[in-house]
Amino acid sequence: MCGIVGIVGCTPVNQALYDALLMLQHRGQDAAGIVTCDMDGHLHLRKDNGLVRDVFHEQHMRNLTGHMGIGHVRYPTAGSSSSAEAQPFYVNSPYGITLGHNGNLTNATDLKRELFLQDRRHINTESDSEILLNILAQEMSPQDGLYLTPEDVFNAVSGVHHRCQGAYAVVAMITGHGVLGFRDPLGIRPVIFGQRETPEGTETMVASESVALDTLGFELVRDLAPGEAIYIEASGRVHTRQCAENPVLSPCIFEYVYFSRPDSVIDDVFVHRARMRMGTRLGKKILREWPDHDIDVIIPIPDTGRTVAIEMAHEMNLKYREGFIKNRYIGRTFIMPGQTQRRRSVRQKLNAIGLEFKGKNVMLVDDSIVRGTTSREIVMMARESGAKKVYFASAAPPVRYPNVYGIDMPAASELIAHGRSAEEVCQAIAADRLIYQDLEDLVGAVRKGNPRLEQFDCSVFTGEYISQVTPDYLSHLEQRRNDLAKNRPERAYANLDLFNNA
Amino acid sequence: MCGIVGIVGCTPVNQALYDALLMLQHRGQDAAGIVTCDMDGHLHLRKDNGLVRDVFHEQHMRNLTGHMGIGHVRYPTAGSSSSAEAQPFYVNSPYGITLGHNGNLTNATDLKRELFLQDRRHINTESDSEILLNILAQEMSPQDGLYLTPEDVFNAVSGVHHRCQGAYAVVAMITGHGVLGFRDPLGIRPVIFGQRETPEGTETMVASESVALDTLGFELVRDLAPGEAIYIEASGRVHTRQCAENPVLSPCIFEYVYFSRPDSVIDDVFVHRARMRMGTRLGKKILREWPDHDIDVIIPIPDTGRTVAIEMAHEMNLKYREGFIKNRYIGRTFIMPGQTQRRRSVRQKLNAIGLEFKGKNVMLVDDSIVRGTTSREIVMMARESGAKKVYFASAAPPVRYPNVYGIDMPAASELIAHGRSAEEVCQAIAADRLIYQDLEDLVGAVRKGNPRLEQFDCSVFTGEYISQVTPDYLSHLEQRRNDLAKNRPERAYANLDLFNNA
Amino acid sequence: MCGIVGIVGCTPVNQALYDALLMLQHRGQDAAGIVTCDMDGHLHLRKDNGLVRDVFHEQHMRNLTGHMGIGHVRYPTAGSSSSAEAQPFYVNSPYGITLGHNGNLTNATDLKRELFLQDRRHINTESDSEILLNILAQEMSPQDGLYLTPEDVFNAVSGVHHRCQGAYAVVAMITGHGVLGFRDPLGIRPVIFGQRETPEGTETMVASESVALDTLGFELVRDLAPGEAIYIEASGRVHTRQCAENPVLSPCIFEYVYFSRPDSVIDDVFVHRARMRMGTRLGKKILREWPDHDIDVIIPIPDTGRTVAIEMAHEMNLKYREGFIKNRYIGRTFIMPGQTQRRRSVRQKLNAIGLEFKGKNVMLVDDSIVRGTTSREIVMMARESGAKKVYFASAAPPVRYPNVYGIDMPAASELIAHGRSAEEVCQAIAADRLIYQDLEDLVGAVRKGNPRLEQFDCSVFTGEYISQVTPDYLSHLEQRRNDLAKNRPERAYANLDLFNNA
Amino acid sequence: MCGIVGIVGCTPVNQALYDALLMLQHRGQDAAGIVTCDMDGHLHLRKDNGLVRDVFHEQHMRNLTGHMGIGHVRYPTAGSSSSAEAQPFYVNSPYGITLGHNGNLTNATDLKRELFLQDRRHINTESDSEILLNILAQEMSPQDGLYLTPEDVFNAVSGVHHRCQGAYAVVAMITGHGVLGFRDPLGIRPVIFGQRETPEGTETMVASESVALDTLGFELVRDLAPGEAIYIEASGRVHTRQCAENPVLSPCIFEYVYFSRPDSVIDDVFVHRARMRMGTRLGKKILREWPDHDIDVIIPIPDTGRTVAIEMAHEMNLKYREGFIKNRYIGRTFIMPGQTQRRRSVRQKLNAIGLEFKGKNVMLVDDSIVRGTTSREIVMMARESGAKKVYFASAAPPVRYPNVYGIDMPAASELIAHGRSAEEVCQAIAADRLIYQDLEDLVGAVRKGNPRLEQFDCSVFTGEYISQVTPDYLSHLEQRRNDLAKNRPERAYANLDLFNNA
Repeated sequence: MCGIVGIVGCTPVNQALYDALLMLQHRGQDAAGIVTCDMDGHLHLRKDNGLVRDVFHEQHMRNLTGHMGIGHVRYPTAGSSSSAEAQPFYVNSPYGITLGHNGNLTNATDLKRELFLQDRRHINTESDSEILLNILAQEMSPQDGLYLTPEDVFNAVSGVHHRCQGAYAVVAMITGHGVLGFRDPLGIRPVIFGQRETPEGTETMVASESVALDTLGFELVRDLAPGEAIYIEASGRVHTRQCAENPVLSPCIFEYVYFSRPDSVIDDVFVHRARMRMGTRLGKKILREWPDHDIDVIIPIPDTGRTVAIEMAHEMNLKYREGFIKNRYIGRTFIMPGQTQRRRSVRQKLNAIGLEFKGKNVMLVDDSIVRGTTSREIVMMARESGAKKVYFASAAPPVRYPNVYGIDMPAASELIAHGRSAEEVCQAIAADRLIYQDLEDLVGAVRKGNPRLEQFDCSVFTGEYISQVTPDYLSHLEQRRNDLAKNRPERAYANLDLFNNA
Repeated sequence: MCGIVGIVGCTPVNQALYDALLMLQHRGQDAAGIVTCDMDGHLHLRKDNGLVRDVFHEQHMRNLTGHMGIGHVRYPTAGSSSSAEAQPFYVNSPYGITLGHNGNLTNATDLKRELFLQDRRHINTESDSEILLNILAQEMSPQDGLYLTPEDVFNAVSGVHHRCQGAYAVVAMITGHGVLGFRDPLGIRPVIFGQRETPEGTETMVASESVALDTLGFELVRDLAPGEAIYIEASGRVHTRQCAENPVLSPCIFEYVYFSRPDSVIDDVFVHRARMRMGTRLGKKILREWPDHDIDVIIPIPDTGRTVAIEMAHEMNLKYREGFIKNRYIGRTFIMPGQTQRRRSVRQKLNAIGLEFKGKNVMLVDDSIVRGTTSREIVMMARESGAKKVYFASAAPPVRYPNVYGIDMPAASELIAHGRSAEEVCQAIAADRLIYQDLEDLVGAVRKGNPRLEQFDCSVFTGEYISQVTPDYLSHLEQRRNDLAKNRPERAYANLDLFNNA
Repeated sequence: MCGIVGIVGCTPVNQALYDALLMLQHRGQDAAGIVTCDMDGHLHLRKDNGLVRDVFHEQHMRNLTGHMGIGHVRYPTAGSSSSAEAQPFYVNSPYGITLGHNGNLTNATDLKRELFLQDRRHINTESDSEILLNILAQEMSPQDGLYLTPEDVFNAVSGVHHRCQGAYAVVAMITGHGVLGFRDPLGIRPVIFGQRETPEGTETMVASESVALDTLGFELVRDLAPGEAIYIEASGRVHTRQCAENPVLSPCIFEYVYFSRPDSVIDDVFVHRARMRMGTRLGKKILREWPDHDIDVIIPIPDTGRTVAIEMAHEMNLKYREGFIKNRYIGRTFIMPGQTQRRRSVRQKLNAIGLEFKGKNVMLVDDSIVRGTTSREIVMMARESGAKKVYFASAAPPVRYPNVYGIDMPAASELIAHGRSAEEVCQAIAADRLIYQDLEDLVGAVRKGNPRLEQFDCSVFTGEYISQVTPDYLSHLEQRRNDLAKNRPERAYANLDLFNNA
Repeated sequence: MCGIVGIVGCTPVNQALYDALLMLQHRGQDAAGIVTCDMDGHLHLRKDNGLVRDVFHEQHMRNLTGHMGIGHVRYPTAGSSSSAEAQPFYVNSPYGITLGHNGNLTNATDLKRELFLQDRRHINTESDSEILLNILAQEMSPQDGLYLTPEDVFNAVSGVHHRCQGAYAVVAMITGHGVLGFRDPLGIRPVIFGQRETPEGTETMVASESVALDTLGFELVRDLAPGEAIYIEASGRVHTRQCAENPVLSPCIFEYVYFSRPDSVIDDVFVHRARMRMGTRLGKKILREWPDHDIDVIIPIPDTGRTVAIEMAHEMNLKYREGFIKNRYIGRTFIMPGQTQRRRSVRQKLNAIGLEFKGKNVMLVDDSIVRGTTSREIVMMARESGAKKVYFASAAPPVRYPNVYGIDMPAASELIAHGRSAEEVCQAIAADRLIYQDLEDLVGAVRKGNPRLEQFDCSVFTGEYISQVTPDYLSHLEQRRNDLAKNRPERAYANLDLFNNA
């Protein structure tokens, strides 16, 4: 997962981009980057692996001059944790285009071949974002006219929509011209935009989530529609256009379950409220299916389980208690000469407060269960802390299929619910009872916020992908994502960078 | 505030010290350090400003060889944020002694003069921990006997108790001999110790909080008594001794309110439970004093306000809701050429979820109110989010006096409650009503966990210091701590270091 | 001035490129870079400001995989000391081309405009090497054929020759295809190539100077002719072609006077031998024009004055003595708060041995006199050391005009001989007598090594440029190069980089 | 070998210490350090491995405040290349003393035992300089008087002379009091001092070589006598005292052969002049012993062979030519995965100019032959470059015994002349003839500059040590210095540092 932001301002935008990336940091903690364009049409770039606060020092900020720019934060994904793949990416022809991308292309291999054979464009990394940038560049290659019109830009986006499959929420900057944002025809990943008035004029921001607007004093205008593009000229003038032929809004439901900040509004649904409804519905389901339950207390797995758990507790009229302390300061396990790697237990991140468990029947609540290893360890901790019975509730249905739209989930074979019934998962995590949210309840909890939302990407639960995905692609993904792949020594391919002021 | 740890193990202790410091990181995020002593009597040190995870890299860990060592994490305090003052400190004569300290000496100036005039010991930093180390070294200076006995070590601690005033929880290591821990005769700062059995033998750890023991698999033995010392020989043999004449346990009550981790047990009181009782008593007080209140919902200021708020809500039979989202990824404001520093609003750290406030009478709950500026901004945010009425509850009574025992609180003049009634503070933070916990309720909430606790240091509430503190010292403190002082350009005095493997 | 190297080998070339750059380091100490291309067609880049030994660490070398690559060392030039302008540069379209350049384009501004308007190629730095790369890329843009033939490559070089004016000795790498070297139609800057046999096959190197071949065990094949290109396919197959229409070899005579290593052979002239002949001719001139001279001893200004001085002494039958010690360890002058910058005297770099001067008439010998400030200080040092008379000889004629072919000389107005007679220069440097080499002697000394050398670029002495140079360009240069320009705060433009493994 | 400097000035001394260390850099390129003492009696330290220009950045210099300080540069020696052993060292008791040392103690092991058993002083590194510092500190420990008088300081130096054996040229700073310099009773290593007048008063510098004085504008006062100490109070007042009972000046003759800068004056002998005389005498010897020689040309091994070779050529009436080019830019050989270390040939540092060798009988001249491996490679290069005959002359006699006074020479078993006749060495380096300087000629060449010099340390030629050296010590040295020892993985012991502003 990644976060994107683009701003056309009336004064230097470096601090605003930095602040916006801080607000989007939950979408990606692996790498961060900003590129700005100054008055003379020069680009300034800084990107590296690390958190926003660690990547940008004073000297970098000082160098990021200009009134427009884009930024990116990246989540670690299999095979791409090299800092060579920090974004934004750059190509110098035509115009000098920089781009940041949230999502994943499912036809990347074909596109790469096309770019090489037809367009003689060299792709140097394994990142599909570099491919997307080159497709955009190729579509924008000048035919005849002397000037680059918004029309030209939107036509290029249409070209991208024709060639690319998968999820892509994009910000791009065309040197000297303006900032472009667009969203794939299914609208899988979120993109919003907003404006603020300043003494020097109106400034426009495009970003992944509304929370970036709020905290910087921008007013939310609206979400981009699926397939739609926004083009903000360097002068500040704003253009929007629907660039896809059959757009169907199909947002990723996991944004609501886990990824987005609770204080964001995605496609007109308050994320926090959606999570509250998930808790209410989950509570109702338990009361319905297990009316004579013996639960003493509801305990969330912090931090994401909290909102759901509170509403469950309200709904079920049970006590809500904080039973786990999350340690925010995590460090590494060093492998000293002559040692073998020790497993770092979940315990370092999460510690149980014994007195909340001793002698009680506890219902633990988490947003979802993916690999199941953490859930199992947490259940064990609850037992060791003296719980009589340990029940477990998941705000999302069983996760059984891989994600192909940009969420770094493990290979299918590593998903605990893959090929297992809920009963079997319950056993695997050693719980006394396991309750999964029903998919229709999950969808209902979200859609209630915006009834116009007709469909979602729920493929991790159903295995039904909303765009065409080939079996070849899925087996390729399986290979790349299995744990062994992650442990393979990294290859650092050179990426197509602007000078990275180090 | 600081965290300390010392371990005498049967195998290398570097990873264990590192893990323990991670668990104590909440006590100090400014600097971290570890020193170990190897079989040949060589010391290995690494310390620097920064979080534990950033200070120690693989090469540093590799170099921290040996089966015994001590570690320290430090909180930023006025006038001492220089990395020169990271701990542990070192003196080579006698024996080679290293030391880490949590607390503050109130007679540091006199001690420094004594060390210079009588003992010809040069103190190079402004840290009172360097003074404490030299006092210990001086008291340990050999008279006649050829060997260093536990008796000698405990006599030296007695000497320290005679000369030093204030708060000091200490770990020290005597090169080639062993690890020493001790606690001032009032027991203001916590020190616990515990043991774990390994195939190679019994290992002993001394630390600030029990949470460090728990997560590393050590069994808590007990808290050190006030004035008591523990000396663990390199061989693993453990000695304890009461080294003070009239020890009176008087722990700092702020450890329970704010500093300690909720999952710790301090002087036999579960911190989490104490906080729950604070919530219950605060709820009772409101019901008692304001029976016809019109509160719709209880909303905590995360993270520390949560436990108190949950129990308040239970007690008052009100809804508990998470209304603020804390952003864990905070960055800096850069001052670009030609700009003046912009105030970074609280909003970047904390964002309100509008729908929890709109049209409601909200009761916000925090652990305490110190400067009041943050409280005021939070109240404003709640109003802007649409709250009808904004009430505020503090789990601690009004903070009106400076802390002289190691908590980095601002100067008295900057405390919002200094010289103000609760009414006036309420006005100052722009709340509709403000409820402070009563001191006797606070004390009661803690003491209930251990009725043998006869007294506490409550001086920040009462201005009554449990040890002698001169007016001179207080005015000196006022000067050092006022905000201007903090902005003065740093002087980096060289500190008495071992080689710091950089 | 810069140094370039390219190798197509049979095994990894990283160490060989590194070693070659060390041998070319005298041509540029400002920045260094290497890019390699691996078997899969991925590029790996490392470049930064600094000496070769400081820029490349083990991890960088490890990442520079592949059997072919190019390297570059750069001299600081006005307005371009930013590390953003370290080379090689990169463009991804077409093919992925990387390039390193030694020289200077005199029509860079026009070319940049063309690239922007016609080709929509964004140039982000102030470096004319980035322009040259884009011209090459544009000329190489595919028309029809599916494969890139040597024919295509040489046609592109012909296109470059048509569009570019000035000096350019170039290595470029076409990703997956091969390494290209070429020399401008006047052959101003040197390029040689050579080969070595290995068990795995024949390896080919292109480089600025033969010394890089020698020390790596390559046999010199020959210099590239002016206008000629060499293209070494990834397979190792070598092609050469004359790509210019009217090439005329006109090497820069300053290569022989100062820049090249004495142990190099440039266009079939041994540099060391040429310098010896400069000494002999200078000696003859003095004997001829000043038969009754009273010189006691010949003393070189180290290091470059030595060879000339030794032969002068032989010719004049005078004693040769080392009278100045060069300090190889130079550091900076720090400007402490409240200080103004102190002039760092020449004395820190050069110290006179008093006894070689005391009471003697000394003839100091240097390769040339440019600004004259150092010469003046050296003359003063000789006097302070007790010399009776101080004479000065320059192996080159008066330097009166700016260099436009890649040598970082100061603006005309800062050249001490600009608008001054030899007499006046003598006065300005406070010498008792000043003897300049005659231009025809300098040319003769070089040409004697290779009579086929018909002409040289001697423009710094004559003001006659061998290619067309507009007055506009010269005045632009004057502005950029004057000392004030050099002190202007640097702007770090982002450069078109591959990922720079930092 | 090392270089030392100490200054008591009237204004900040950081830049002057830095500049002085640059002038002494030839004495040690491994590590550098400066410590200063400010008006308030605070010490400021910066030291690290690396060249002076790399160790000190602007922020370090800014922090090195104060009007007095000392500095040190260090040569790599077996078993001590850890940056933990960069100097100056520090102890805080008594007074706070910092120290830099050039030389080597031959009774270090005994002293370390004494310090541990008698004085309870912990020594943490393997450096004998740390031992020397602690001996000084112990001797300076206060008895009764309240103030530290020059008398007290000189008595402490006398105490050091009584306890320490070997070579030691020392600068030390007593915090708040002054700077001390002293030289062992044999005067093996050089120490000079000088003064300069400034508007603010007289400033005094103590340093290893006069060249540091010259270039900073200090007037040489004189060398310290053997056993003598100089103490400069913080006020600027200078005291000197003979602190040894039977001092006998016995300077290391290798200072004249190789170590010192030619422009230095050591014990009243001009080093440059001494080297010239070495050349003259060597020339005479050849003419005497080989009157019918067939030498065509004299070629020095740069840089140190030059002065000797020039005078040999004059004496023998032969041509002098520069035949080798030294590459000043040396880098590392990287060991890539799967490779074994390749030998880096001498060729990278030194390249032969073919035409100076082809068909000639050449006499190569070097200052000395130690291991012989380089000499052999150089002889081979001369042959490969076409020399008919290759003769070799050494300005020093055969080096057959280890140095125990601070020169990092290899173990006896690695000295090519150890147990070999000159004939056998000639064969071993593959020369056609080898001429060594006679020891009496070497001594004569130096003593001629100062007839009062009665004896020298010539132990590396004769095996006769001027101070008592036990066989145990020599065999210990043999072990530490053999090449295997150097390749042993480094142990980084923590050193007794002040805070090292990193």
